[in-house]
Amino acid sequence: MESTSQLRGKRCAILGAGGFIGRSLSAALVECGADVRACRISGEPGTVPGTSWHRADFASASSLTAAVADAEIVVHCAGRMTPETSNQRPLQDIEENLLGSVRLLECCIDAKVKKLVFASSGGTVYGPGAPTPAAETDATEPISSYGIVKLAYEKYLALYRRSRGLDSVSLRISNVYGRGQEPGARGIVALALSKAVAGEPIAIWGDGSVVRDFVHIDDVVDAIMRSMLLDLPDAPRVYNIGSGVGRSVREVLATIEAIHGRPLTIAYLPGKAADVPYSVLDVRLARQFLGWTPQRAWHEGVQDAYDWLQEELRAPARTPAKRPQQG
Amino acid sequence: MESTSQLRGKRCAILGAGGFIGRSLSAALVECGADVRACRISGEPGTVPGTSWHRADFASASSLTAAVADAEIVVHCAGRMTPETSNQRPLQDIEENLLGSVRLLECCIDAKVKKLVFASSGGTVYGPGAPTPAAETDATEPISSYGIVKLAYEKYLALYRRSRGLDSVSLRISNVYGRGQEPGARGIVALALSKAVAGEPIAIWGDGSVVRDFVHIDDVVDAIMRSMLLDLPDAPRVYNIGSGVGRSVREVLATIEAIHGRPLTIAYLPGKAADVPYSVLDVRLARQFLGWTPQRAWHEGVQDAYDWLQEELRAPARTPAKRPQQG
Repeated sequence: MESTSQLRGKRCAILGAGGFIGRSLSAALVECGADVRACRISGEPGTVPGTSWHRADFASASSLTAAVADAEIVVHCAGRMTPETSNQRPLQDIEENLLGSVRLLECCIDAKVKKLVFASSGGTVYGPGAPTPAAETDATEPISSYGIVKLAYEKYLALYRRSRGLDSVSLRISNVYGRGQEPGARGIVALALSKAVAGEPIAIWGDGSVVRDFVHIDDVVDAIMRSMLLDLPDAPRVYNIGSGVGRSVREVLATIEAIHGRPLTIAYLPGKAADVPYSVLDVRLARQFLGWTPQRAWHEGVQDAYDWLQEELRAPARTPAKRPQQG
Repeated sequence: MESTSQLRGKRCAILGAGGFIGRSLSAALVECGADVRACRISGEPGTVPGTSWHRADFASASSLTAAVADAEIVVHCAGRMTPETSNQRPLQDIEENLLGSVRLLECCIDAKVKKLVFASSGGTVYGPGAPTPAAETDATEPISSYGIVKLAYEKYLALYRRSRGLDSVSLRISNVYGRGQEPGARGIVALALSKAVAGEPIAIWGDGSVVRDFVHIDDVVDAIMRSMLLDLPDAPRVYNIGSGVGRSVREVLATIEAIHGRPLTIAYLPGKAADVPYSVLDVRLARQFLGWTPQRAWHEGVQDAYDWLQEELRAPARTPAKRPQQG
């Protein structure tokens, strides 16, 4: 990205800085010379070198006020639910992730934040009836509370843009993978890589036919940084961010077997009702307005994540959860 | 409606039974021989003769559990916000109307309720960019928290239908009017009628060019009762309920002037940001699957509401707020 120099000195608050996207983004922003406040709901300071740290509690307006104080740009990639847990606890999901996130908007207004970039969900907002690939204008019929809440928040962002003057961009991100994704994370790529390296069997939900759009973390970080800098008033404010290519879980496992050089032991569990069978994104809008295209090739990206994981395992004193982002 | 006999003896819980739609529906259900529990958040028992009464608090699961206990069908037409107040207090809107309403779903599951009918909002879910008339499949871009919450709740209903087996129908109702609508209510028809009768000036928001789809309360009650009885598994579960005809506020005032026989004094206030300029519904889907069509003619419906209001004013001992529904 040519224009990252524009991020130099920018005061940014990252909500969810302890997660995969948040850590990777924080590290990249530090690299660009941005002034990064890494906000996370729990954990220790020092996740990413060069950032300041704030403990953000979405239930507390004063905590969020402190999180966004003096920030020019806020990136919201916080959230601890999965589609499945959200369906088990929809009231908690609404409370934490919708009510808390709208509370964040109120604090952004008070703090005169200029822009908010939101990590929405390309895999859940469209639902099982979506065309392939799904475009931003297609019908949105989520089958999880997770997806409903993400979608509702996109609409609150539109409302605050229109009526309160807070600019924002929602990125409907597909399944992220890449170096820095912890083995304990939700992603099938990180999970399968860690199981391969450990020589353990991997349990997957369903028969492996579920198709997802896997996008590399570097491409996601690039899309977020471009969104932070988007200043075309008439450009859309909701973008799909994915590879545009569908891969089944079986294909993912085959890639990892090829890289690892040994077959995986796979246990098939019943599929999850909260998961759509097929999700691939049409990413032409982001190309047109953000000048963004996914750059990282699949096989190379998985190989790189595999290499990173091997390095991690050779450095047992530094547990992955607390290590700085490498990529 | 031919099939109202099927409602005889049905145990129904009406949430929001103190409102215009809730009172009218409760009276019609009593007429059909249904067993009606009238639930309202405040006010006195005895709103509608022949109903039992329950004070329902959406913040309390135990209160909602009691509200829907033993009910076969629940109708949710509760809510105290307007689009404008919802934008002033979005956190309260989410808490009361989304969190509270999803809490209701959990209680319905526990109580083994068979069906829930939800009074959604045809005037707010589509937003200003919608085609005219707007169909159920058109894009939904609300410009009020009110509309966002209604839309999100429709999606929760779909989720609970799919994953928890609670059948439901969402009715995107346009602007309701007719006898029984109190002068203090939100509707422009009731407001203008009361001002005409009182000989007082009427203040309207904007220049009167705002176009709405006015649907008669009897037609709305008919649509709700048909939805309560809908048993086609493959039928859609979201329907527009309106007249299908657009009328500007100026036309509404002209109709009322003609009926009243004297000119109104009109004060024009600044328009409201939360209101879309134009909202007319395509109601063909309800015709196809519910066998429903709006029956009441506009001029006749307004005349009837005018006559009702005159009767009300001649019976000062019975204040309108506590009187039983007449229609």
